[in-house]
Amino acid sequence: MARLSAVNPKELPLHSARGGPIFFQAHALQASSGPPLSAANQTLFDRAAREFSVTDTPRVPPNHLKWVQDAENNPDQFPDGVVCATPLFNISVMRRLLDNNHIELRDRLYQLFKHPDFHPRYGLSLAEERAHVMKMWKRVAALGFMQNSLSAGTVEGRQRYDAVIESCGMLSHSLDIKMSVHYGLFGATIKLMGDDEQAARWMPLLERCEMLGCFALTELGHGSNARAVETVAKYQPSSRTFIIYTPTDSAQKYWIGGAFQTARWTVCFAQLTVGSVCHGVHPFLVRIRNDDGSVAKGITLADCGHKCGLNGVDNGRIWFDNVSVPLGHMLRRYSQVSPDGVYTSKFSSPDERFGASLASLSGGRISVASGCLNQAKIGLTIAIRYALSRRAFGPRDGEEVRLLDYQSHQYRLIPALATTYSMQIVLNDLHQKWHRQELGKQLHVWSSGFKALMTWHSLATLQEAREACGGQGYKSENRIGPIKNGHDVAVTYEGDNHILLQAVTKTVLPEFIRGVRNGVFQGHFAYLNERGALQRADLSVMDARSLEYAEIVFRRREGAVFAKLAKQLEKMRQSGMSALEAFNNSAIVVEEAARAHTELIMLELLQRRLKSLDAEGQHDIVHALQMCATLYTLKCMDSSTVFVRSGALPATEADRVHNLLLSCCKEMRPYVLDFVKAFGIPAHLLAPIAFDYVGHNSRARL
Amino acid sequence: MARLSAVNPKELPLHSARGGPIFFQAHALQASSGPPLSAANQTLFDRAAREFSVTDTPRVPPNHLKWVQDAENNPDQFPDGVVCATPLFNISVMRRLLDNNHIELRDRLYQLFKHPDFHPRYGLSLAEERAHVMKMWKRVAALGFMQNSLSAGTVEGRQRYDAVIESCGMLSHSLDIKMSVHYGLFGATIKLMGDDEQAARWMPLLERCEMLGCFALTELGHGSNARAVETVAKYQPSSRTFIIYTPTDSAQKYWIGGAFQTARWTVCFAQLTVGSVCHGVHPFLVRIRNDDGSVAKGITLADCGHKCGLNGVDNGRIWFDNVSVPLGHMLRRYSQVSPDGVYTSKFSSPDERFGASLASLSGGRISVASGCLNQAKIGLTIAIRYALSRRAFGPRDGEEVRLLDYQSHQYRLIPALATTYSMQIVLNDLHQKWHRQELGKQLHVWSSGFKALMTWHSLATLQEAREACGGQGYKSENRIGPIKNGHDVAVTYEGDNHILLQAVTKTVLPEFIRGVRNGVFQGHFAYLNERGALQRADLSVMDARSLEYAEIVFRRREGAVFAKLAKQLEKMRQSGMSALEAFNNSAIVVEEAARAHTELIMLELLQRRLKSLDAEGQHDIVHALQMCATLYTLKCMDSSTVFVRSGALPATEADRVHNLLLSCCKEMRPYVLDFVKAFGIPAHLLAPIAFDYVGHNSRARL
Repeated sequence: MARLSAVNPKELPLHSARGGPIFFQAHALQASSGPPLSAANQTLFDRAAREFSVTDTPRVPPNHLKWVQDAENNPDQFPDGVVCATPLFNISVMRRLLDNNHIELRDRLYQLFKHPDFHPRYGLSLAEERAHVMKMWKRVAALGFMQNSLSAGTVEGRQRYDAVIESCGMLSHSLDIKMSVHYGLFGATIKLMGDDEQAARWMPLLERCEMLGCFALTELGHGSNARAVETVAKYQPSSRTFIIYTPTDSAQKYWIGGAFQTARWTVCFAQLTVGSVCHGVHPFLVRIRNDDGSVAKGITLADCGHKCGLNGVDNGRIWFDNVSVPLGHMLRRYSQVSPDGVYTSKFSSPDERFGASLASLSGGRISVASGCLNQAKIGLTIAIRYALSRRAFGPRDGEEVRLLDYQSHQYRLIPALATTYSMQIVLNDLHQKWHRQELGKQLHVWSSGFKALMTWHSLATLQEAREACGGQGYKSENRIGPIKNGHDVAVTYEGDNHILLQAVTKTVLPEFIRGVRNGVFQGHFAYLNERGALQRADLSVMDARSLEYAEIVFRRREGAVFAKLAKQLEKMRQSGMSALEAFNNSAIVVEEAARAHTELIMLELLQRRLKSLDAEGQHDIVHALQMCATLYTLKCMDSSTVFVRSGALPATEADRVHNLLLSCCKEMRPYVLDFVKAFGIPAHLLAPIAFDYVGHNSRARL
Repeated sequence: MARLSAVNPKELPLHSARGGPIFFQAHALQASSGPPLSAANQTLFDRAAREFSVTDTPRVPPNHLKWVQDAENNPDQFPDGVVCATPLFNISVMRRLLDNNHIELRDRLYQLFKHPDFHPRYGLSLAEERAHVMKMWKRVAALGFMQNSLSAGTVEGRQRYDAVIESCGMLSHSLDIKMSVHYGLFGATIKLMGDDEQAARWMPLLERCEMLGCFALTELGHGSNARAVETVAKYQPSSRTFIIYTPTDSAQKYWIGGAFQTARWTVCFAQLTVGSVCHGVHPFLVRIRNDDGSVAKGITLADCGHKCGLNGVDNGRIWFDNVSVPLGHMLRRYSQVSPDGVYTSKFSSPDERFGASLASLSGGRISVASGCLNQAKIGLTIAIRYALSRRAFGPRDGEEVRLLDYQSHQYRLIPALATTYSMQIVLNDLHQKWHRQELGKQLHVWSSGFKALMTWHSLATLQEAREACGGQGYKSENRIGPIKNGHDVAVTYEGDNHILLQAVTKTVLPEFIRGVRNGVFQGHFAYLNERGALQRADLSVMDARSLEYAEIVFRRREGAVFAKLAKQLEKMRQSGMSALEAFNNSAIVVEEAARAHTELIMLELLQRRLKSLDAEGQHDIVHALQMCATLYTLKCMDSSTVFVRSGALPATEADRVHNLLLSCCKEMRPYVLDFVKAFGIPAHLLAPIAFDYVGHNSRARL
């Protein structure tokens, strides 16, 4: 190895630039195998570094306007012309089905996003990126679309709210998060948890952005387990105020979107203490900054700092030093404290109370799932369009082959496309039920399960899309990479996906166990009353493309996994473990059960929706969606060994499913361009490589 | 839905800030449901935006020095104290085994990285980030470690080269790529493809950085299929020069690391044309900038722009306009042109010639695999240490449970840890053979397969580590997120992983087919001569922890997948498809075959290494590595349905493997801290959450 000898310690400065403590030890660092750099080549380095420093790198990628204009003029102008297949369905009908409502509103926002203020920007400092997002939000807010949205308490208002958030999310995840935090978490909590008077007082202000807010639930030491937050709100009858304080370092509010500089108000979740009794977590409206931007009395704010994405959102930390909050600022729809200090609540158990106080999170989870599916759509549209124009390898003297004509490329993108379609259909159903407020217990289970599976699907799809575009997928102007970095966080926020899956099983399992005990299954599990027939069904004679095939397999899996879990928990309990320990030590089966349940629910919703569309006479659409649904279920069965392990799918069928999946990709291949067009994403929200990547990179454009 | 009415178009400016064409249409954008923002709340927005603009966000995360110092003083000071198990092995012996060579050199570089110039920086503009990397490179270069490294042509030199690159990669991927491009791609090509005189002339200059270079192979239209590059080098006997030119837009050199501003020279790969004959792709040394930074005559350079990671590297584009290159600048070890225009080559076939000219890429692939495993180590160390201190949920009135004591958390991190260990052992073997230049055809196959599987493993591990740390994993100062963004590119550069897998099968399949035809298998496939016994082996009576169990399953799988592929190709050829079409239409089996082959090779190398360590008497180390190897093979078998589909693993065994995997995670759990310590990563290359995350975030540190 290289021999090392002592070097003059003066060569390496010993003081940090920030004047901090010296801890760098100038060890002998020079290899004896050669002299240090000469003066001449030091100059080479310095010159290169200086060139970088003085180069003004444009934040908006070069030729942005130009490629968009070309793409609009020739939306299907691939450099070598791609042959479109005979249409399978009407693109605009499909688009309306997917986007579901407020189509015109969405398109108008997309139109606004052509304005230079909304052009993409990369390589921004933290301060620049945050300022950019504020500027965009201001422009969107000025249109007034959010007014009377959540406050109205109508289906139209809630749909309009979601349409605005979703459209903004197509442009910038930081923008939609910033808005969701303010209107959706801060606002919706006031709407849901405040009484009518409180909602009437504050909702119009916040919908007009005269009151900018954030949502202070998470603490440094308490993320997923929100019930354990430590912040205290102690009622003082003498002054008729709550005194809010941060008792420990781990109790600081952390990750609070908008808290560092944007928000003037927060809904703070704290342990309500009246006299010597703690009544659990309750929400309080607290000022954190004055309108002039100065920090409010008793509040300390700090920056959460740079993240690997989503830097337009100024996540912050908050400490409360005996902040005095008027009695009227406790959100009191369900629980209240009388002036003389008597606590009353509409809920008898702390569990119910806690559940109700986090109700706004269910809507948040649906929004997150929805936003993520939209990002998958952007990634897929770009990657598929690129794969239709980009060629690589081929016969020695012939034209190279289009990427999408490789089986491997089809396998990477087409099942993801079909899954995105299937999930969107299912999510629309949930979304509609949410808008109409038709769901009870299911809301929690479905929104949790869907959020987990849809965000993971989206992230995996963006990863695949990025890889499928090679280096171009890594280039920021082509959007996939930055979108992926920004949406990565979706799998752990608004409920960590693993925790959400555990919550699904926790909620559903008791019904299964009741069925086992009673010998008769109710509700969702009723199909298990016919489990003999379910087991006897001979898959080998069935059409594996049919959703009936998938239904049998999904049901067998769910039944088997829940049975395994129930038996395992029982055994562990008998061996002396606490219920909690048994559950934690079964976490993998617990998550498999949640996935099995959620995928079966999704399949059932999909089947129902296809039937209703068929009844409406939309046969072409049904045909196209059926193709997607088949591919989606095949992909599920092919992706995990649980189907075989649980006995739901014999090994020979697993092989058949795998081969059929490949054929179905090939069958869908001629129609993929139409499928991505029906996502309705305008050119300027796509990327140069989705159109003429050679023209965009041509020398003439330098 | 919201009704939309016309708005004064003056409200939205119609001209782009850049003076470009007007294409923003000021459609009616105001919702009738409310007035636009009032003057008062416009001020709110403007103020927030202004606050962002004027805030100076620090590029080095706050308290960087402080937490590092604390961590060094108390490396095991988790906030609530973690009990370490009785050691299973000697940590420093294990570390030497993993890092393999130049341990002192590595540690000295790590020591250098404490200097303020190397402190982490986030939120930099493109120009700032590039300048920062140049500054770091200059400091490292000044130590002279690279002198006489590759040029020496010795095992020590090649090992020293890799040790420097790997150590720099622990700090910054941009730094190691920038250095790899210069020394490893530019330099190694001159060493390998230049004759002795050329190497003697240029290698010392470039190792002393008096000649900064890049590697111009990829073109806009030609990435994976490098043989199709269009750039032309036409020999002119009259002037004894090559005239190099870029014939089309798709022929521009693209993604060339360092080409935009750093490099002064490039090795340009171009189609050599002598008279009217094209002899295929050959390398030429070409000046692209003068030493003063001005662009050389006939050269046009452009920036590839911002990427979603790795922005310290200035990837650039190059056009050649009849650039005149002296005869002596064609790298002529294997092929040359005489002054009067006679082409001669040591290779008879263009295929061999092409293979030889890209030999430097094989070394590059090993380096990439190695760098990625190192990143997985960083991610795992941080996530595992955090999971040992962070707690969430628990008994109602007791302490919350440590994350790593959840089965789900173990399942997410521990198999990844075991896989990283197993892969490192195997890669060291390949690396050593490469340093000693002992490999022939295997070099291409192994380096391709290992690169693909190891980079994907690394990316998946970083993703899991990021998610396992929740929001903290997303925070830049905790490194995992930025590292993931930077290393994402590894799965598509230096050979796209899918293309590499296809190359593995393409190379190995003929040997399998010969065996089928001859009825006797040779070499690697010789085990198939006993395929009767292989099929009859009763797995259910075997110890599924043993590597013999895995060996049987892996062999069965490889045999079955190759047999399926051979049969399928044969059938397609008989139905009239060309060999190329048949291969493309079988791409999924082709990739499954490559994975089967590579995983079996890895298993065999692992078994051999364990045996040799055992023979050396390193029983504790062998025991620990055996634990890793078992978990790794179980994880392989549990992750893909191919084992069951191919008949390698009966469904009942798949279930047994799955359950055993969970038990093995639990068994390894007490030792994980030692396993990550043996990676030998100093505190300052880890993250605050790997130590006392509460202390680091405490209010006292504001």
